Amino acid sequence: MTLFSPDVEAAIMQVRVDVARLHGELVRYGLVVWTGGNVSGRVPGADLFVIKPSGVGYDDLTAENMILCDLDGVVVSGTSGSERSPSSDTAAHAYVYRHMPDVGGVVHTHSTFAVAWAARGEEIPCVITGMADEFGGPIPIGPFAIIGDDSIGRGIVDTLRGHRSRAVLMLNHGPFTIGVTAADAVKAAVMCEDAARTVHLAREAGPLIPIPQEKIDALYARYQNVYGQAGDDRRDDGVTS
Amino acid sequence: MTLFSPDVEAAIMQVRVDVARLHGELVRYGLVVWTGGNVSGRVPGADLFVIKPSGVGYDDLTAENMILCDLDGVVVSGTSGSERSPSSDTAAHAYVYRHMPDVGGVVHTHSTFAVAWAARGEEIPCVITGMADEFGGPIPIGPFAIIGDDSIGRGIVDTLRGHRSRAVLMLNHGPFTIGVTAADAVKAAVMCEDAARTVHLAREAGPLIPIPQEKIDALYARYQNVYGQAGDDRRDDGVTS
Amino acid sequence: MTLFSPDVEAAIMQVRVDVARLHGELVRYGLVVWTGGNVSGRVPGADLFVIKPSGVGYDDLTAENMILCDLDGVVVSGTSGSERSPSSDTAAHAYVYRHMPDVGGVVHTHSTFAVAWAARGEEIPCVITGMADEFGGPIPIGPFAIIGDDSIGRGIVDTLRGHRSRAVLMLNHGPFTIGVTAADAVKAAVMCEDAARTVHLAREAGPLIPIPQEKIDALYARYQNVYGQAGDDRRDDGVTS
Amino acid sequence: MTLFSPDVEAAIMQVRVDVARLHGELVRYGLVVWTGGNVSGRVPGADLFVIKPSGVGYDDLTAENMILCDLDGVVVSGTSGSERSPSSDTAAHAYVYRHMPDVGGVVHTHSTFAVAWAARGEEIPCVITGMADEFGGPIPIGPFAIIGDDSIGRGIVDTLRGHRSRAVLMLNHGPFTIGVTAADAVKAAVMCEDAARTVHLAREAGPLIPIPQEKIDALYARYQNVYGQAGDDRRDDGVTS
Repeated sequence: MTLFSPDVEAAIMQVRVDVARLHGELVRYGLVVWTGGNVSGRVPGADLFVIKPSGVGYDDLTAENMILCDLDGVVVSGTSGSERSPSSDTAAHAYVYRHMPDVGGVVHTHSTFAVAWAARGEEIPCVITGMADEFGGPIPIGPFAIIGDDSIGRGIVDTLRGHRSRAVLMLNHGPFTIGVTAADAVKAAVMCEDAARTVHLAREAGPLIPIPQEKIDALYARYQNVYGQAGDDRRDDGVTS
Repeated sequence: MTLFSPDVEAAIMQVRVDVARLHGELVRYGLVVWTGGNVSGRVPGADLFVIKPSGVGYDDLTAENMILCDLDGVVVSGTSGSERSPSSDTAAHAYVYRHMPDVGGVVHTHSTFAVAWAARGEEIPCVITGMADEFGGPIPIGPFAIIGDDSIGRGIVDTLRGHRSRAVLMLNHGPFTIGVTAADAVKAAVMCEDAARTVHLAREAGPLIPIPQEKIDALYARYQNVYGQAGDDRRDDGVTS
Repeated sequence: MTLFSPDVEAAIMQVRVDVARLHGELVRYGLVVWTGGNVSGRVPGADLFVIKPSGVGYDDLTAENMILCDLDGVVVSGTSGSERSPSSDTAAHAYVYRHMPDVGGVVHTHSTFAVAWAARGEEIPCVITGMADEFGGPIPIGPFAIIGDDSIGRGIVDTLRGHRSRAVLMLNHGPFTIGVTAADAVKAAVMCEDAARTVHLAREAGPLIPIPQEKIDALYARYQNVYGQAGDDRRDDGVTS
Repeated sequence: MTLFSPDVEAAIMQVRVDVARLHGELVRYGLVVWTGGNVSGRVPGADLFVIKPSGVGYDDLTAENMILCDLDGVVVSGTSGSERSPSSDTAAHAYVYRHMPDVGGVVHTHSTFAVAWAARGEEIPCVITGMADEFGGPIPIGPFAIIGDDSIGRGIVDTLRGHRSRAVLMLNHGPFTIGVTAADAVKAAVMCEDAARTVHLAREAGPLIPIPQEKIDALYARYQNVYGQAGDDRRDDGVTS
């Protein structure tokens, strides 16, 4: 017995495979330790998303133990993995999916340098061209919010809605990133930590040279439009499959 | 000929397997170099614990060459591995097991950032939510103590008894962590270094924003109670097996 | 049907194999994340070079999907991989090959410490003998330039022509390195990041001791002439194949 | 035809195997990049040592391509690998073997943090117990010396003779370490970088707490005598084989 149409079942399975695999990228780039961090992906054509189970190690993640939730963050019972609890950040992911319909993926980590900026409540200034390409300006700080209600989700949405950046550093907590797909959100998480690390190191050794705003704008515009392969979703480039 | 009842023999074997495997997590997270560092685990239902042999490389650790000790830290002769010497920190582990009956695992490393705080005798302030979750406040400094008597073990116990933190930074030396199981103590060692590194980097770039005490309390309370999968020992979540 | 003489076809294939493989060295030494960074190699005896496709992950690079370009950076249609777009830095590579006939390889990365110096517009002083060996003095800063015309290529050539250094840090952007072969340029990228990291860390802890210029000259002269195996191209030593 | 007695041939082969393998430890602990760094080992019972060939990549090192030299650093012709040049640091290794008869192994790297101290000409203070165990006090600075005569070897010997430390940081250059075996010298190289990194990070965040000299003495004395397994050479513990 299946709960959904064959098309939706197929879409769910694809997202399960992608989300399980993409967690490996968090490990590869050193963004997570132990069971921390989580990736989710929206199921195209359905009010559903797939997310990591809570407190399960990265070596043990499979398409089958990913957890299917509705957009309120409630586990869809009777589906693969539904006997386990979803990530403790599930409510925040769900809030983002409900309020940002173009978002297809959400990632949360406690990656070291991004958390360091978050502990000071300081946005990351855009002083390197790679950051201009990827984020189109600074990476902003979101409000202090703790688990228990919608405050984390609301903080993410309020900060990123209308912002070029796909990454927000939640105060004293860490980065959440969004993307058009789960892979795009994972890429944003990788590039966010890369920017956080590079600008941290640059600044500790002396004054930074700003990039003129019109150059930032030009770099961002080009990157959104021409990078990667024709026919690719721009933001999904480079994902191994 | 076996020395113990079949139940105790089975429990010993399980702890041997766990302790040998958990040393690999110290390597995975870069907490140890060469033969430094050690994990031990208490044998449930017996006054025994299992610990790493002294001066043996991480590639060569097996369930069979782990060493079985009584709670005075004396090797149980005639058991697997007993022809070798146990870790030179065995007396400290034994002291903890004797004086903290709820402790099921102890870990010691010289992980880089934790030792850096220890060399300044400075506790790690709790300015990130991940640290509030895991340690419920700052990670404290223990006294200066050197091998040769009970002073290391006593320093660990005196510092951690009644403290939320499962990690102590022994002055000029390095971290010891405890847990309800060996896996829990290893998790604490991983999270201790993660906190030490992140807060070090955060602070070197400017003033830190404190987290209000009641928020720290709320995060710690939640994490002790609801994180991970129902039915899991909270502190044993996420261990691959 | 082949487009070139058998000799040139064989040379192209050899450069494809080398360039695909050498991208793995960027990963090994942590110089790149996601799909960033690129290596190219000139085809000996032809006005051609081989470069990475744009936005393709490092796990997926093969000799076959490397892209063959002429010295204007135009993809040679009908050749293996030509259905994809070449690296977005292709114009800069092409400019270097047109204007520096002795250059056989070009590499670009956003490696962390090199970018940190670039964000301050500060050359890396030559205070360690390994840097004197490899670069014969400081690693210079190039101008600010963004993609869209010849300004990046011109900045590289104007900075490195007649300079001992095979690495330039383009302002607010990152390192480009050149070499007599693609392997030599990759070696320069690895050693540039190593120097950038080491001198960053050295200087943050106190004043550096300069190396007398005549000692730098002597080290550089020796390294160009006697290091490595007799019969090796000096700059191609140590490449695993 | 063999050049040596069967016993010496067997000893040479054992040292070749050990030295080739031990280079892998330099890679494992991130002490070297590209073809930099070298390990040598004295052949017990003969005036010979085995060293890395110059400019060969770490993936390509085998017992067979290690190079056999006499104590003047001259390659023994007709032996395996003798068609290649030995490490460009061979003269320094040879000088050490000639002047320190108890030394059985020598290692040289450009490991990052050790070189950073060397670029400031600053000895590493002994503020952590792991350093007291291993080096018995500070790690000293050696003179500025460049390749071309005996000055590097002489600087090593003059600094380390009668010193507890098995590591010296040659000014503006990097660490050389010695040991009773090649494995012991490699261990010293690993622990030297670990100490250099930890004390660098400790000090950049505030004042360090000194360890009383008599405690350093006690730790060093204990470690020389009781660490590791009975019957082991103390300094050879923990080497996987």
